[in-house]
Amino acid sequence: MKVAKFGGSSVASATQFRKVAHIINSDVERRIIVVSAPGKRFKDDIKITDILIQLAQAVMAGKTCDEIVQAVVKRYAEIAKELELPADEFLAELKNDLHWKMNEYRDNPSRLLDAIKASGEDHNARLMALYLQEIGLEASYVSPREAGIVVTDEPGNAQILPESYEKLYHLRNRHGVLVIPGFFGYSPEGNIVTFPRGGSDITGSIVAAGVKADVYENFTDVDSIYCVNPSIVENPRQLREITYREMRELSYSGFSVFHDEALEPVYKAGIPVCVKNTNNPAAPGTWIVAKRNHLDEPIAGIASDTGFCSINISKYLMNREIGFGRKLLQILEDEGISYEHAPSGIDNMSVILRANQLKEGKEQRILARIQAELKVDEVHIEHGLALIMVVGEGMERAVGMAAKATTALAQANINLEMINQGSSEVSMMFGVKEEAVVDAVRALYQAYFQEAVVGNEV
Amino acid sequence: MKVAKFGGSSVASATQFRKVAHIINSDVERRIIVVSAPGKRFKDDIKITDILIQLAQAVMAGKTCDEIVQAVVKRYAEIAKELELPADEFLAELKNDLHWKMNEYRDNPSRLLDAIKASGEDHNARLMALYLQEIGLEASYVSPREAGIVVTDEPGNAQILPESYEKLYHLRNRHGVLVIPGFFGYSPEGNIVTFPRGGSDITGSIVAAGVKADVYENFTDVDSIYCVNPSIVENPRQLREITYREMRELSYSGFSVFHDEALEPVYKAGIPVCVKNTNNPAAPGTWIVAKRNHLDEPIAGIASDTGFCSINISKYLMNREIGFGRKLLQILEDEGISYEHAPSGIDNMSVILRANQLKEGKEQRILARIQAELKVDEVHIEHGLALIMVVGEGMERAVGMAAKATTALAQANINLEMINQGSSEVSMMFGVKEEAVVDAVRALYQAYFQEAVVGNEV
Repeated sequence: MKVAKFGGSSVASATQFRKVAHIINSDVERRIIVVSAPGKRFKDDIKITDILIQLAQAVMAGKTCDEIVQAVVKRYAEIAKELELPADEFLAELKNDLHWKMNEYRDNPSRLLDAIKASGEDHNARLMALYLQEIGLEASYVSPREAGIVVTDEPGNAQILPESYEKLYHLRNRHGVLVIPGFFGYSPEGNIVTFPRGGSDITGSIVAAGVKADVYENFTDVDSIYCVNPSIVENPRQLREITYREMRELSYSGFSVFHDEALEPVYKAGIPVCVKNTNNPAAPGTWIVAKRNHLDEPIAGIASDTGFCSINISKYLMNREIGFGRKLLQILEDEGISYEHAPSGIDNMSVILRANQLKEGKEQRILARIQAELKVDEVHIEHGLALIMVVGEGMERAVGMAAKATTALAQANINLEMINQGSSEVSMMFGVKEEAVVDAVRALYQAYFQEAVVGNEV
Repeated sequence: MKVAKFGGSSVASATQFRKVAHIINSDVERRIIVVSAPGKRFKDDIKITDILIQLAQAVMAGKTCDEIVQAVVKRYAEIAKELELPADEFLAELKNDLHWKMNEYRDNPSRLLDAIKASGEDHNARLMALYLQEIGLEASYVSPREAGIVVTDEPGNAQILPESYEKLYHLRNRHGVLVIPGFFGYSPEGNIVTFPRGGSDITGSIVAAGVKADVYENFTDVDSIYCVNPSIVENPRQLREITYREMRELSYSGFSVFHDEALEPVYKAGIPVCVKNTNNPAAPGTWIVAKRNHLDEPIAGIASDTGFCSINISKYLMNREIGFGRKLLQILEDEGISYEHAPSGIDNMSVILRANQLKEGKEQRILARIQAELKVDEVHIEHGLALIMVVGEGMERAVGMAAKATTALAQANINLEMINQGSSEVSMMFGVKEEAVVDAVRALYQAYFQEAVVGNEV
């Protein structure tokens, strides 16, 4: 059996609902469907989730909310109307649900936000089930509670609890197509709790792992995953196949297709993922697998992300101080800072981290602590760094991978702030100034994906 | 004024004593002389220090020692005889000194070893002073106690105490040439304590800093420091000038000219060092300075060392665990392990360290602790790694430094286990398998030093 998850743009309108129904109808193995809330229909459209966040904020601020509730209801009503669904009962239930939550959680902002946001997916799943029934399919809405998605009780940051998987397995015994809303679960205390970023992908992945699906299909709005960000390189190569490890490295550093957390359940269960396009389901899509069948290309992709900074420390004879690195990382841990990489030389150590963690005086405090507690000769912070990851399972065995990258960057006259190669078997990390990142990624794409095509290099 | 230190081979025989005297005579600024114990006169010769270590071991083992004492006395007697010095008193004093120490420290092996070893330098300084007087120079032996070299009381690992510098400054007021033995000082408790590796270099550097010398001359048996190990590359380029930072990075990783600890006092005092050849004092030697006058060569040298290993750890979603790196380094610190570099990726972390630290079950214990305490997916250790450092002050400003290195290595078909670039402004670190290190260093030398000469590359 297959679990198919449909993202926001795939379920944004009646037209999209029809496409989804067609996809479900065309393969009897597609037995469990996970849906997002209606997403954008056009560039400047507003997602239902964003309207629901506005609603929750208005409640917290004690403002009038009727118009916002109306806007939500209207969006679903339009879809229902165009699909010619008898939806009065559904819309009344939607309105009741929102009002009940607005009242129940009025004095508990984080619970309110989670409960209201979850309504977006929840009602889209209900509407999808209605529509599938209407066109003659045996289909039913299954709430996360009924499905068995039990999560930790931390608002906005639900983590799946292990007992969920056994419960989910019983869904295999149910008949017909099951439609489950993405993005949230229920805590043992009975609260609605949403997943972090990439929420519906997480639900789909958990459900696929729970029911031991043969495939987890992730329907989105592109034909495949690209080997590089299409906003940096025009018409980049499409990937037929990529490993979990490659995907995780890429998604971590700027590939927005998949949030890395979403892959964990299917990765652990060994279930292959197929990323497909709702608008072009005939395209083969991209497979995410444990082991690639085609390793002729050592490099799978190039990802990049900006907004990093580097704390650079020097101290004469640093390397003779046992515990220096540990003490430095302890200071960061005390301050709740996570870091990407901490390269060290003989008398130097740097820590690369996301700069948005250094707000509200934290930068000054950390620098002062390093100076005072580690008695360093010098410490300074360099902002505006970008990290580029070149990712591929074949990298470890191929001589010259680093030479190809560094040569391409040198030819593009890009100064390398940092190279980290060797800690991961499947990636190399390069640090450049933010203003150089686009040129750098293009130069690397050229070197790895275009020269090979025209046969200039092996 | 200049402080001149003469290494073991520079003071190994009467012929060498004459060369030293000539060097001292040729420059009135050479007012303070630091001498090692007599070193090797030919390839298979035994250094006095090694005979003295045998002596201490014989005492500890309760064996008869007369022959070893005789061997020591004979060596000095030969030098004195060839120099036609009236040395009976000197030789009697040497014998008395050894016997007194053998008796005094019989039940205290570490004190015995330090006291006996120190005799080598101490009596060579006395003999040198005698000889200089004999040839008509105003010269005197100054013991480290009289000079003011006050050190910590840890046998074999003396660290200079700050009050020494003020005491040493008074040496400026003394007339004539002062001859000070290298390698040891006196603790506040009155014990003879030797410095760690590179001991006489440390004394010379401390004395130069204390008297605020204009130059610290380090006389050895090569015309200059080479940019690469001459046992790997034949006739390598000689360095005219190198910075303290460059020297420290190079000496750390396989350059045996200077032990890194020896540079610290002159580095802090900003005193330039000139490395010169006792056997060819007319050669200009190599200057070690704070700032190079000639920065046309971005790379100063290439150093390499073997005997490293890498602990490689992978854990899915490692990077989301705040504190992971700190906990790993804490385990190493608990086990008394110092590490060279700890590169990390998203789900991976490696620690590069000297393998000789992992004896007697430590390897198994550390791997077991990492597995149990950090709950990693995988941990394994890779032995037989070599590290190569490419060092140069100009590196940071030059685009393409990494490309040149990685291309040269790829062309030599050498697989890179690791690259660490960016943490130090003056070096790049490469990890290769030990069996590839000679080829790798030659390829890098060719790329940085030979192609430039023939004008192929800038």
